[in-house]
Amino acid sequence: MSSSPTPKSRVLVLGAGNFGSCLADHLGDCEHEVFLWSRDPGFVEYFNVHHRNPNYLKDHAFSTNIHALGPEIPNKETVQQMEVLLFAIPTQGIRETLTKLQPSLTGEKLPLMIFVNKGIETGTQALTLEIIADTCGSRVAREATFISGPSFAKEIVRRQPTSVSVASLTESRAEKASEVFHQPWFRCYTGRDPIGLELAGALKNVYAIAAGMADGLGFENNTRAMLITRGLAEMTKIGTAYGASPLTFLGLAGVGDLFLTCSSPSSRNYTVGYRLGKGEALEDIIRTLGSVAEGVTTAKGLKKIIDEMDVNASIATEIYQVLYEGKDVKTSVQELMSRPPSRELDLPEKTGDHAKGLLKKLGLDTSINGDIVKHTSQYGHECPVP
Amino acid sequence: MSSSPTPKSRVLVLGAGNFGSCLADHLGDCEHEVFLWSRDPGFVEYFNVHHRNPNYLKDHAFSTNIHALGPEIPNKETVQQMEVLLFAIPTQGIRETLTKLQPSLTGEKLPLMIFVNKGIETGTQALTLEIIADTCGSRVAREATFISGPSFAKEIVRRQPTSVSVASLTESRAEKASEVFHQPWFRCYTGRDPIGLELAGALKNVYAIAAGMADGLGFENNTRAMLITRGLAEMTKIGTAYGASPLTFLGLAGVGDLFLTCSSPSSRNYTVGYRLGKGEALEDIIRTLGSVAEGVTTAKGLKKIIDEMDVNASIATEIYQVLYEGKDVKTSVQELMSRPPSRELDLPEKTGDHAKGLLKKLGLDTSINGDIVKHTSQYGHECPVP
Repeated sequence: MSSSPTPKSRVLVLGAGNFGSCLADHLGDCEHEVFLWSRDPGFVEYFNVHHRNPNYLKDHAFSTNIHALGPEIPNKETVQQMEVLLFAIPTQGIRETLTKLQPSLTGEKLPLMIFVNKGIETGTQALTLEIIADTCGSRVAREATFISGPSFAKEIVRRQPTSVSVASLTESRAEKASEVFHQPWFRCYTGRDPIGLELAGALKNVYAIAAGMADGLGFENNTRAMLITRGLAEMTKIGTAYGASPLTFLGLAGVGDLFLTCSSPSSRNYTVGYRLGKGEALEDIIRTLGSVAEGVTTAKGLKKIIDEMDVNASIATEIYQVLYEGKDVKTSVQELMSRPPSRELDLPEKTGDHAKGLLKKLGLDTSINGDIVKHTSQYGHECPVP
Repeated sequence: MSSSPTPKSRVLVLGAGNFGSCLADHLGDCEHEVFLWSRDPGFVEYFNVHHRNPNYLKDHAFSTNIHALGPEIPNKETVQQMEVLLFAIPTQGIRETLTKLQPSLTGEKLPLMIFVNKGIETGTQALTLEIIADTCGSRVAREATFISGPSFAKEIVRRQPTSVSVASLTESRAEKASEVFHQPWFRCYTGRDPIGLELAGALKNVYAIAAGMADGLGFENNTRAMLITRGLAEMTKIGTAYGASPLTFLGLAGVGDLFLTCSSPSSRNYTVGYRLGKGEALEDIIRTLGSVAEGVTTAKGLKKIIDEMDVNASIATEIYQVLYEGKDVKTSVQELMSRPPSRELDLPEKTGDHAKGLLKKLGLDTSINGDIVKHTSQYGHECPVP
């Protein structure tokens, strides 16, 4: 990897929420020329005058290298001037935004497209990689890059040391994204398993609900460490069945983010679980939470995925039943505890159908030896998933 | 695995410290007939009258199924009446105790020998598996079983739900140990990688010092999650180079115990790091800590192991330099942060020499295809370590 100073880039950040504006600030702090798109005209005007976000990170004075744009989606001319497009919008809005942007992505030179949303699309259960292929075609999807990892926005803007995973099916794109973001206080680690990275980011929110539930019920440190570990094993099993590399779950997007989310009362997903454990009704929690807890919707899509793959995922199933079938929280935990002893990591025998279908859509040949992991794991050629 | 009720066993617990007496209590609570050996005559007398431990878990009324023995090491007749021997003594005392017990282990039927100590022997850098082979021979070592995982004693005696990993080179022994311990509130997961289990338990204490250091320096959640994750990746790399399965580090003995140790101010190793981060001198910390922090000695042995294997382990190296070469804590963290971007999981190319030597000592053939992982990983035959 090059150690020469990175040439500065023009970056368009789509989405001026908590995480989008934080990353815009980091990139401005890295001396990139940053454009921050919001669909709220009030935000655009206010930001360009005060360099503050009126809704998030309110105490923070943002980098003056950021110029806010909007409310219309940037036009083709603007998009084609950008070297980097950073998508910081919720998963449920990705399809609509990409559909609008697609006509601007027809030039010879594709901008580097980076996605930081975490979740599964409701209804379709699609990963963002699939949404990109659906809306922008397989070439764009193959080069798309994903960033995930333990990263509270409020700490990033104060330059608290943070590390993230950066993954793409096209390794040179992951390396380029890493160069754009990397700083001594913001470290990037590259990988080749975007499917695992996406699944880890989405699934961890479901297990954070479980950890919160246990804490709400009054269980202590041993129990929480157990739940996080068993949750990680379950995530790994589901991801492997899907076609991801099990080792991705050992990384920042897996164990790192799971650890952060499960050990912080400021996580919305943890809070949903905690309040369920304390006996509150889900409707009341959602009504008073003020914002969406992605784990609640992900739990629903995840249930469909594990049923389709016929994977035994007892924690995810219990969380689904508590959230959507009114199962009693205490009964649920009781049943998790009374399962018979078993092997620690029971990876599935049949793996990869989902990823295989997705990679086919992306124009990647997965027929030779059925070796799908070659595309998703850096150990693929040496370590076929069992 | 059988679901019929487990026949009760006669168990000799060696060591009446915090963890030994807690496990004796758990086994008594499981209706086993438990003998608890201590070399302190005062303890033996006091315990058999009051069923309390005067030194640890003082508020707890211990199971009446426990009978204390000592101060002499139990004689052959006593040992041969036992179905299970549970070793809950510090790693540095294992060689001496096994040497004394060895003459009692000559019967046709070996008791199930279970080890819960975590650490590397000072001077030799031997794992417990090797100490067992040295003192009792390869047959005993091949059947030895190891338990590790996130388990605070004070929570176990209150039946707070806890899970542990149970590993042996002889899978039926791990399953038997699991049956002896398993309860709805004490769950056992079996595996076949005792080397990985031992390394995870020993190494995690070094990374807990690192996590404590970062917290002591005033870093926040992102940094701690990063350090834990990068520490886990480093542990996995070292373990894999040694010859363990990388997947063991995803389990309760790896990520589970690391998580518990790094997120609890009541961990001694974390506390050493925290106080170093606050600027205290190591001698003062050790003098006032009142008990040994294993991570401090493990860091020394670990340095020798990584040097011998020529593995790049920057966190372990920095911790070693802070502890033994007077390196400034802030400089150390600074240097960790300013390393160039890299791939996330960089498993070593050359692996297994240490484990190969050890397994040879145990009479296990590792010559065929050099396939040492077959013996240590449940995925070994399908996933040779790269």
